[in-house]
Amino acid sequence: MEKSLTYKILEKNLINGILQGGEEISVKVNQTLTQDSTGTMVYLQLEAMEVNKIETDLSVAYIDHNTLQSGFENADDHEFIKSVASKYGIIFSKAGNGICHQLHLERFGKPGAILIGSDSHTPTCGALGMISIGAGGLDVAIGMAKGYYYLKVPKVLNIELKGSLNKWVSAKDVILYILKELSVKGGVGYIIEYSGDGIKELSLTDRATITNMGAELGATTSIFPSDEITKDFLIRQNRSEDFILMEADEDAFYDKKIIIDLSLITPMVAKPHSPDNVDRICNMEKIKIDQVAIGSCTNSSYTDLMKVAKILKGKKVHPNVSLVISPGSSNILKMLSDNGALGDLIGAGARVLEATCGPCIGMGQAPKTGAISLRTFNRNFKGRCGTSNSQVYLVSPETAAASALAGFLVDPSTLGNSPIIDLPEKFQVHNNYFIFPNHNEGEAKVIMGPNIKPFPINKALCDKLEGKVLLKTGDNITTDDIMPSNGKLLPFRSNIPKLSNYAFGTICDNFKDICVKYGGGIIIGGHNYGQGSSREHAALVPLYLGVKAVIAKSFARIHKANLINAGIIPLEFKSPLSYDDFSFTDNLIIDNIIYQLENSSEILIINETKSKEIPLIFNGSKRDVEIIKAGGYMNYAKGNLK
Amino acid sequence: MEKSLTYKILEKNLINGILQGGEEISVKVNQTLTQDSTGTMVYLQLEAMEVNKIETDLSVAYIDHNTLQSGFENADDHEFIKSVASKYGIIFSKAGNGICHQLHLERFGKPGAILIGSDSHTPTCGALGMISIGAGGLDVAIGMAKGYYYLKVPKVLNIELKGSLNKWVSAKDVILYILKELSVKGGVGYIIEYSGDGIKELSLTDRATITNMGAELGATTSIFPSDEITKDFLIRQNRSEDFILMEADEDAFYDKKIIIDLSLITPMVAKPHSPDNVDRICNMEKIKIDQVAIGSCTNSSYTDLMKVAKILKGKKVHPNVSLVISPGSSNILKMLSDNGALGDLIGAGARVLEATCGPCIGMGQAPKTGAISLRTFNRNFKGRCGTSNSQVYLVSPETAAASALAGFLVDPSTLGNSPIIDLPEKFQVHNNYFIFPNHNEGEAKVIMGPNIKPFPINKALCDKLEGKVLLKTGDNITTDDIMPSNGKLLPFRSNIPKLSNYAFGTICDNFKDICVKYGGGIIIGGHNYGQGSSREHAALVPLYLGVKAVIAKSFARIHKANLINAGIIPLEFKSPLSYDDFSFTDNLIIDNIIYQLENSSEILIINETKSKEIPLIFNGSKRDVEIIKAGGYMNYAKGNLK
Repeated sequence: MEKSLTYKILEKNLINGILQGGEEISVKVNQTLTQDSTGTMVYLQLEAMEVNKIETDLSVAYIDHNTLQSGFENADDHEFIKSVASKYGIIFSKAGNGICHQLHLERFGKPGAILIGSDSHTPTCGALGMISIGAGGLDVAIGMAKGYYYLKVPKVLNIELKGSLNKWVSAKDVILYILKELSVKGGVGYIIEYSGDGIKELSLTDRATITNMGAELGATTSIFPSDEITKDFLIRQNRSEDFILMEADEDAFYDKKIIIDLSLITPMVAKPHSPDNVDRICNMEKIKIDQVAIGSCTNSSYTDLMKVAKILKGKKVHPNVSLVISPGSSNILKMLSDNGALGDLIGAGARVLEATCGPCIGMGQAPKTGAISLRTFNRNFKGRCGTSNSQVYLVSPETAAASALAGFLVDPSTLGNSPIIDLPEKFQVHNNYFIFPNHNEGEAKVIMGPNIKPFPINKALCDKLEGKVLLKTGDNITTDDIMPSNGKLLPFRSNIPKLSNYAFGTICDNFKDICVKYGGGIIIGGHNYGQGSSREHAALVPLYLGVKAVIAKSFARIHKANLINAGIIPLEFKSPLSYDDFSFTDNLIIDNIIYQLENSSEILIINETKSKEIPLIFNGSKRDVEIIKAGGYMNYAKGNLK
Repeated sequence: MEKSLTYKILEKNLINGILQGGEEISVKVNQTLTQDSTGTMVYLQLEAMEVNKIETDLSVAYIDHNTLQSGFENADDHEFIKSVASKYGIIFSKAGNGICHQLHLERFGKPGAILIGSDSHTPTCGALGMISIGAGGLDVAIGMAKGYYYLKVPKVLNIELKGSLNKWVSAKDVILYILKELSVKGGVGYIIEYSGDGIKELSLTDRATITNMGAELGATTSIFPSDEITKDFLIRQNRSEDFILMEADEDAFYDKKIIIDLSLITPMVAKPHSPDNVDRICNMEKIKIDQVAIGSCTNSSYTDLMKVAKILKGKKVHPNVSLVISPGSSNILKMLSDNGALGDLIGAGARVLEATCGPCIGMGQAPKTGAISLRTFNRNFKGRCGTSNSQVYLVSPETAAASALAGFLVDPSTLGNSPIIDLPEKFQVHNNYFIFPNHNEGEAKVIMGPNIKPFPINKALCDKLEGKVLLKTGDNITTDDIMPSNGKLLPFRSNIPKLSNYAFGTICDNFKDICVKYGGGIIIGGHNYGQGSSREHAALVPLYLGVKAVIAKSFARIHKANLINAGIIPLEFKSPLSYDDFSFTDNLIIDNIIYQLENSSEILIINETKSKEIPLIFNGSKRDVEIIKAGGYMNYAKGNLK
C-alpha cells in the first residue's frame, strides 16, 4: 500500500507495535521542547526519574510564557529550568529569545523527525515535514528519559489545497476557512496531512501558521511535506544539512480526504468566542475596535511582521487603538530593526513588546472593559485575554494592520496593492540568548527557589482499596473546576502543595480540608468528567491530596489518561443509575483490586455505608493496568528503566 | 541682592506672598504633568472641581506606569485619563510613547517656566532651567483648575561643579557621589541650583540624570541654568523657539554652597537598600550578578543607551545575567533602531522592553530569589523590585553594560577607551503616540470603567466634633501601613472604596469594619505618624472611611499636609504622656472646634469615656485652618473658584 507522509515518519521511528489505525505503538522521540509554564513540571518529573542523561537527539527548554515577572516566582522557575538544562545537556533559551515554536522552526526542527513538546501548539513544526505533537508533561519527561513515546496510531486526513490565493489573503485566512469548514472537532483523532499544488504558494512560515492552528481543529498534529520550499527555508537559516526530502507516495492511503480551493478564500475572521466561529470579513458589519495585537506562535514570522510594517509605514495608528506587536524571535526583531521596518512600526505608534507569547496567553495587554480586540493569535476563548467581557476576533496580520489604521475592522482586500515581502538571503542566526550544553552534564546543581516543590509520586497499588467519598460532582466538570488556572495561580504551576489549596475551588470551599481529614479517598463524578484543557495539574493535585480513584458516568479522554498517568484509577458506573448509590463520606472498599483489574473489565465496589455492592467498569489497556499497579506512569517508566 | 536662578523664576511667576525664605507664596503653574498611576486620582479630583477649562499653558497626561495590563483595570484607567484629557484640552501620551519625564524633557519643558507633576521625579525637567516640582495629586488638579500652586519659599543650595569628569565617569556617578556626601536628607527644604565650569561638561540629559535624583536627596527640586547646552538640545529637538537664557546673577545669594570637584569622582555604586549607601566601585569586592536593568527616567536617554549599545556591540551578555533595557521614549527607540544600535543590543542578547517605567517601579522583571540586580534607576529600596530578599545596586549605564558582559560588578574605568557618542543633528520627533486636543473641549464624555470610583469629598467642618477611637498605633507608622501598596493593589489606585478594605492591613485586620460600625471616628498615633511615601491615598482612604481627626505624638510633614488637604485634622498631644489617656473605642468630643482652631493653637478634647479633658496642639497656618473648615483643599479651592 502506498504510504502517507505520516506513516513514513512513524515507520522510520517505530520501536514497538503494529503501524495500523487504532493500534498502540511506541516511537522514537528525536526531539523534545518545553516552555516555562509547563516546563517546570516536566523537569520536576525528569528529576524524579533519577536518570543520568537524556535519550533524545536534541531537547530544548524555552522561556517564553511567564516573562512579565511580577514576583520572584517566574525568575525562580527560569533559573530552575536553566539549572536542569545544564545538568542533563538540554539547550536553554533565555527569556527574550522568542516563542518556542517560532524558534524551534528557525533553529532545530528537522524533516522526518519526531518532536514532542509540552505545549498544545507544538504541531507548528509540522510545517517542516516532521511529526510534532503536543503532549502531557510526563510524556515529555519520559520522552527525554527513555527516548520513546506511546500513541495510538491516528487516522490520517488529507487536505489537498488547490488553486491560488487571492491578493491580501494569507495563511491565516486559509486555516480560518478550514476551521469554518471542519469546526473545532473536525480534526479529532487525525493527523492532518497537506498536499496539492496550492501548498507551493505557501512559504514555510505560512505553512507553520496552518499547522499551528491545526491544534484548534483538535488534530493530533498537522504536517506538510518537506520540499523545495522547506529546503529554501533551511538554507536561509544556515541549516541546509538538516534538509531531507519527505513526501507522501503518489497514491497514498488516507482515511479521509478534503479538497480546498484557495481561490475561494477571502479575508476571514473568527468571531468571539471560538476559533471556528468564522465568517468572511466582507460579510461583517462595521466594528469599531479598541485594541489590535499582532504576534504569537501563529503569526509573528519575519514575513508577517514585514507585511505589517509595510502597511503601517508613514501612517498613524488610530488614536482609539492600542496596537501591540510581539515578534516571534529575537532574530526577527533584529532583522526588522536592522532593515528599518521596526522604525516604521514605532513611527506609526505601535507598542513593541518582547519576543514572547505575551498577550496571546493573557500575559499582559488585557484590553479595557467591554473592548473589541483584533488579534492574529490562535485562540479567542472567552476571558483568555484577561478581560472577561471583551470580544476577541482572530484575523490575519494584513487585516490587523489595516484595521489598526482605520480604527475599525476592515477587509484589506478593499485596499490597493498587497505588500510583497522578499526574504533576506540569509536569516540572522544570532545565538546569544541560547545556552548550549557544555558537556559537563551531571555536574550542575539543580536550583529550586522556595516556590518550587518536588513532583508528587504515588505508591504502588495495594490489593485492597478503601476510602471515603470526598466529593460528588455533577456532569461536565472541567479541568478548570478541578484545578483552576488564572493569572494569580499561574506562578504556582511548580508548587503542587500551594495549588492544592485551590482544588475544586469553583464547586467546593474546602476540598483540601476534606482530603486531609479523611486521608484522601474517592471522587464521584457525572458525565464527561475532566473536559476542557489537558492540564496535567488536574490529576497531579488530586494525587497530592490522596485521591485514589474517580468513579464517573463518563470521562473526557485526555483527563482520563492523565489520571492513569498519576496512578489514580478512573472507573465508570456499569449502570449510570448507580450514581445515586453514592453519597458524601460513604465508605467504599474494592477488594482484590489488582486481581480484578488484571482479569476483567468489571470491578466490584462495596459501599460499606450503604451496605451495597455496585458493579463498575475499568476501560483501559493492559498497559494502563500495569501503570496503575505501579502507582502511575512515572513509577512504571522508572521500573522499566532499571 | 543678586538673585539665584530659583528666585528669578519664582519672581517671574509670583502671584501672592513675599519671596523670602519660609514665607508661603503662590506661583503661576505654567505646565502640569501626570502619569497614570497617580493620574487617575488627579483627574477624578479635577472632575470633582467642576471647572470648564484648565488654566495652565500646557498640561500633559502620560501613560507610563501601569502598562503591563494584567487585568482590565489598567486599560480602563488609560481610557478614563484619555477621555478627561479630551474634555479639558490636555495632551494625552499613549502607552508605549515613553516615560513622562524623558518625554517632557524632549517635547514640552521650557526654561523659566514652572511645572508641577504628580510624580516624585518631576524635578527631572530642572535640567532645562525650569522649576519642576513633584506634588500631591490634589495640588496638580488645583494647579490645572486654578493655575496656581502654593509653596513655602525654599532655601537655595548651590552646588558648584568644577573640574573635569574622568573617562568612564558620567552623570549618574556625579549624583551618586553627591548622595554619598549629602545623604538622602541632605536636600530637604532646599532647591538645589547647579553652577560652575563643570556643568559645561554635562549634556542636557546628563543634567537630567542629576536633577532626577535630586528627589533622592530630599530636595524640593534641582535646577541647572538654561545656557548654550540647553539651546543646543532644544534646537536638536526642533524647539529652538522655546529657548530663553536663564541664569543666576553672578554673585547670587545662596542659603548654602557646596563645591564638588568632578575630577575626584570615579565610577560609583549605591549599595542596598538606599540611594545614599554609596561607595566607589574600585573599593568593592567582586560581586556576581544575576540581573542588569537599564532605563528608567534616570538613565534612558539616547546618549545613555547608545553608550550601552557601543559597549555591547559584537559581544554576548553573560549567560547568568538577564539584561533588560527600557528605552526612555519611542523616539529614542526609533533612533536606536534606525541607526543599528538596537540591533547591536539584540545581537548581544539583551531583552528590550517597552518604553515605560517598567522594572523601576516593580512593574515586571522581579529578579529571582536572593538575586543581585544592578540597575541604572534612582531607588533601591528593599523590595521595590518585586523580590523582597533581592539586593539592588544603582550604577551608571556604562557600569551596567560592562557588568552585564562580565557577569559581575565591574569598574568600567579598568576597560579600554570609553564610548563617545555624537548626538544626531536632529532628534526624531514623531508624534504618533500623542493625542493633541482638538479644541472641542467640554464635548468629550468621561469614560469610567467599573473599577474607577469618584473622588471622596469631605463635608465642611461642624462646630462639634465627636467620634470614637478607631485605632491606636505605635510610633513610625508609615503610609505603607495606612494604605498598603503593592502589585496587587496598584490597579485599584482609582478605586478608593476597594482600597479601603486594605487600610491599616499590616497592623489591624478589620479597620474598615470598625469604621463602618462606629460611623468613622478618630485615630491615635505615636511619633512620626505617616512617614514614608507621599501617597495621597493614605489620607483619602481614611477620609472615605469617615476618619475626622488623627491625634499623634508627631507627624511626618507630607502626610500631615495630605491630611489637611483631605479635611482630616492632624492634632498633636501637648504632652506626649497624654497618649496613655486614649484607648480603643473611647468616645471623644471637641466642642467649638472652629472657634478653637481660629483663636488658638491649643485645642481641648474631652475623653468622655475616661471623663478627662486633654490639651492638644494644632500646628498649621491660617490657610490650613480655612482648608479644614471647608472640609479639605478641594472644597476650599472650589469655594475660591466660585
